[in-house]
Amino acid sequence: MEFTDRLVDAQRRKNSVAVLGVDPHLDTTQAPGIPAGYSLARFCCEVIEAAADFIVAVKPQLAFFEARGIDGMRALAEVLKLARRLELITIADAKRGDIGSTSAAYAEAFLGQGDFACDAVTVNPYLGSDSVAPFVGRVGKGKGLFVLVKTSNPSSGEFQDLVTPPGRPLWEAVAERVREWGSDFIGKNGFSSVGAVIGATYPEQALRARTLMPNAIILVPGYGAQGASAADAVAAARADGLGVIVNASRSLMYAYRNASGGADSAAARVAQATRAAAEAMRDDLNQALARRTAAP
Amino acid sequence: MEFTDRLVDAQRRKNSVAVLGVDPHLDTTQAPGIPAGYSLARFCCEVIEAAADFIVAVKPQLAFFEARGIDGMRALAEVLKLARRLELITIADAKRGDIGSTSAAYAEAFLGQGDFACDAVTVNPYLGSDSVAPFVGRVGKGKGLFVLVKTSNPSSGEFQDLVTPPGRPLWEAVAERVREWGSDFIGKNGFSSVGAVIGATYPEQALRARTLMPNAIILVPGYGAQGASAADAVAAARADGLGVIVNASRSLMYAYRNASGGADSAAARVAQATRAAAEAMRDDLNQALARRTAAP
Repeated sequence: MEFTDRLVDAQRRKNSVAVLGVDPHLDTTQAPGIPAGYSLARFCCEVIEAAADFIVAVKPQLAFFEARGIDGMRALAEVLKLARRLELITIADAKRGDIGSTSAAYAEAFLGQGDFACDAVTVNPYLGSDSVAPFVGRVGKGKGLFVLVKTSNPSSGEFQDLVTPPGRPLWEAVAERVREWGSDFIGKNGFSSVGAVIGATYPEQALRARTLMPNAIILVPGYGAQGASAADAVAAARADGLGVIVNASRSLMYAYRNASGGADSAAARVAQATRAAAEAMRDDLNQALARRTAAP
Repeated sequence: MEFTDRLVDAQRRKNSVAVLGVDPHLDTTQAPGIPAGYSLARFCCEVIEAAADFIVAVKPQLAFFEARGIDGMRALAEVLKLARRLELITIADAKRGDIGSTSAAYAEAFLGQGDFACDAVTVNPYLGSDSVAPFVGRVGKGKGLFVLVKTSNPSSGEFQDLVTPPGRPLWEAVAERVREWGSDFIGKNGFSSVGAVIGATYPEQALRARTLMPNAIILVPGYGAQGASAADAVAAARADGLGVIVNASRSLMYAYRNASGGADSAAARVAQATRAAAEAMRDDLNQALARRTAAP
């Protein structure tokens, strides 16, 4: 079964386009990344369990696990096991990309059978087609990709918006390639298993991206803590409401910090706050999709 | 002490610009990645010890460790411990880059104090300045970066060579930023701790890169198995022979496969073949540098 069909099926079954970004930030003096008394794995797993009813996928951010060394990587493997058990789609937010023989090893790491294997992985296109090809080679085996096209961060335009021949920004040249890379992997819903990342912080580009990549599922970061609204986040949805999945990380992972009273234990506080935040996110996005579909 | 000064000192002490890429490929039916009876860590460590006299740095390729899951990451930590004990400079070939808060976690992973910490890391610039800034923030603390500018692979031109205003390829726009990012970190030898990656497979671009980034140490992949000559690999060296370090991976790691007779044990075969290959590489590069300096 094509990855894209699994994703669309999950979206319909859950009535949700929400993705939980599993981003266990490092503790800082300003804010604790992980509640007192929690292990990394336990915190991530409780957040995932609490949000599971309202999300289609989890997207662990590799950086936050790698930053904790071997213990962190062990926690990542635990998190992925739990996500699979909960029948959540897993997306490794790794943003990898290297020369061909090295990309093949990354594809094995994140789309193979090992400890860090997921259903999909994010890929950085800077090295061009031969760096993406080994990932595309796994797509035929039920796996998916999301290629960085237009990222959500403030300086994303510095290189991605540079005008290239015949007069279009670099990210559009990348978008065109994404369409080509994905053309052999169109599922029954008309979407390709090769998707794209377009930040919710750039909704106009998202609309343009939809015309350039009519079949791409667009993974949308930037909703929530990065400041984009639900309407911005679903800008690239198709008329039938399909074709985008929207990630939030900090607003779900750290919902517990704003929770007041009610729950007796830290665990109950994390669970209640995350569950409420995930449900609210799902509803916010669904309402934005409904408004969009209803618009003339 | 600036990273760049440590690197130049090591280069002078060892009379070498050679870097050992620690790329333990996965076993395939065509070729065994690791000799029979060897563990991953033991193979990498024996290769490093055998090459140590002739190289200034080791550059483990993260992909080949991640592809082996938690065991692979444990081996990486062992490899880095040995390299430090041998006083070799360590460069994490990770090609990371993400939104600022995530890049900060990657910087902690590869330039911090943890299991995977190195002296320098390779960085992908596609997301722009704010994605590189957290890495640059560590450079002031004796660490180094090598930013991907023009990569060694066949399709590197697909995006990197696209013409951008005012009429230069994208990679030159990146090179200009690399010069800016590195301008606060110039060491006593005139080189910056923010360097660049320019593939030996593109020697003309390497010459141009030198004029665009007069202070950058250029990390040069593509020598050896990827087909570039020693002359190509040192094309961007300064007139005094400084300013480039040259990586080889497969031609050193797998030298043992071409070794015939002599050594009694597998271990002796790996050690002898690697040592001979590393010495030959060092000499080949030094001769190319000498010819270059002698040229009119």
